[in-house]
Amino acid sequence: MKLIGYFRSSAAFRVRIALNLKGIEVEHATRHLRRGEHQAADYAALNPQKLVPALVLDDGEVLTQSLAILEYLEETHPAPPLLPRDPVGRARVRALALIPTADIHPIQNLRVMSYLRSKYGQSEEATFAWSRHWIETGFDAYEAMVAGDRRTGAFSHGAEPSMADLCLVPQVFNAGRFKVDMSRYPTIRRIFDTCMNHPAFDAAQPAKQPDAEP
Amino acid sequence: MKLIGYFRSSAAFRVRIALNLKGIEVEHATRHLRRGEHQAADYAALNPQKLVPALVLDDGEVLTQSLAILEYLEETHPAPPLLPRDPVGRARVRALALIPTADIHPIQNLRVMSYLRSKYGQSEEATFAWSRHWIETGFDAYEAMVAGDRRTGAFSHGAEPSMADLCLVPQVFNAGRFKVDMSRYPTIRRIFDTCMNHPAFDAAQPAKQPDAEP
Repeated sequence: MKLIGYFRSSAAFRVRIALNLKGIEVEHATRHLRRGEHQAADYAALNPQKLVPALVLDDGEVLTQSLAILEYLEETHPAPPLLPRDPVGRARVRALALIPTADIHPIQNLRVMSYLRSKYGQSEEATFAWSRHWIETGFDAYEAMVAGDRRTGAFSHGAEPSMADLCLVPQVFNAGRFKVDMSRYPTIRRIFDTCMNHPAFDAAQPAKQPDAEP
Repeated sequence: MKLIGYFRSSAAFRVRIALNLKGIEVEHATRHLRRGEHQAADYAALNPQKLVPALVLDDGEVLTQSLAILEYLEETHPAPPLLPRDPVGRARVRALALIPTADIHPIQNLRVMSYLRSKYGQSEEATFAWSRHWIETGFDAYEAMVAGDRRTGAFSHGAEPSMADLCLVPQVFNAGRFKVDMSRYPTIRRIFDTCMNHPAFDAAQPAKQPDAEP
């Protein structure tokens, strides 16, 4: 399998953590998002959404959308599990995972920030304020959902990493870039610290990728 | 079970279709989004994200995030299935479902449009143009992924409705409200027409809900 990603992409980061946790070896390729390499015709032919990541299977089949890829990896490489066994627990983990994946990151990602700059003449600082607003809105909810829920453990759901943590951690990295005040989110911070002490998360972080830039 | 929704909410619409397809009877409650009823303290206590829908189980457990609810319904009420059996097919359906769910709707929903108006002083017409842009960007990709793929059938994946169709149809309704030129998307239109001829989709449409407004 080959993962086409980008060191700073939150969505690719989620998939890298899953691959590390499950011990799946893949070839890594990169598309430089700031240089627009994901817009090239050869990539659009693989992934018409022109977003990273894409997971190219050995038979040439291309999987897109990070959450769909995580579910695929869970179904084909079930150990260690990224979802609990009980349907209500699975629903909780997926709902937590969807807060960053659907309701934060897509609103504050590179393409939306670029559009705000080019279409509405917003400064870079204004686009940072935009990103902070949506991260804080989402983190307010995530914090409320994990703080004081007895199912929250060392990780977002219990004592082992789940899909929720895989989606939370890259969003916390983004929050750092946009100067979100993380003191408002003590439970998220605690879970993040737990995750980053885990080698599978640590090795997946942007700065440790071969295509990383300062 | 009780579904807390709103007639015009795309996310609630997805869940209503699933309930209809699977023949699951639930109580329906509504939170009027334009009047801000989802911001009330009693609703925030149920769903800290203050978004609809929420599915309240008989034991009081509250499930949030429409895709997480769809996966829960699929796991607890497997017939008829909303996902194919093969992992690659499941990944394709989930990726298609995530185009509207993660990469279109969250960027063009009510709260983002309100923020554009209040923060950047955008007119209603400008926010409509914003919404059209993100719907078209997503539909360009969805159309490319379904047109000419032999796995596309009467529906987005094969001859029966899947999670992809449940997420596509509400987005096509939104496209209509924002005057997207649907002639660019012949395959999406054909799938949409097939869906709307199915009673489970028809009965779930906004205009047919008890809380519908003209």
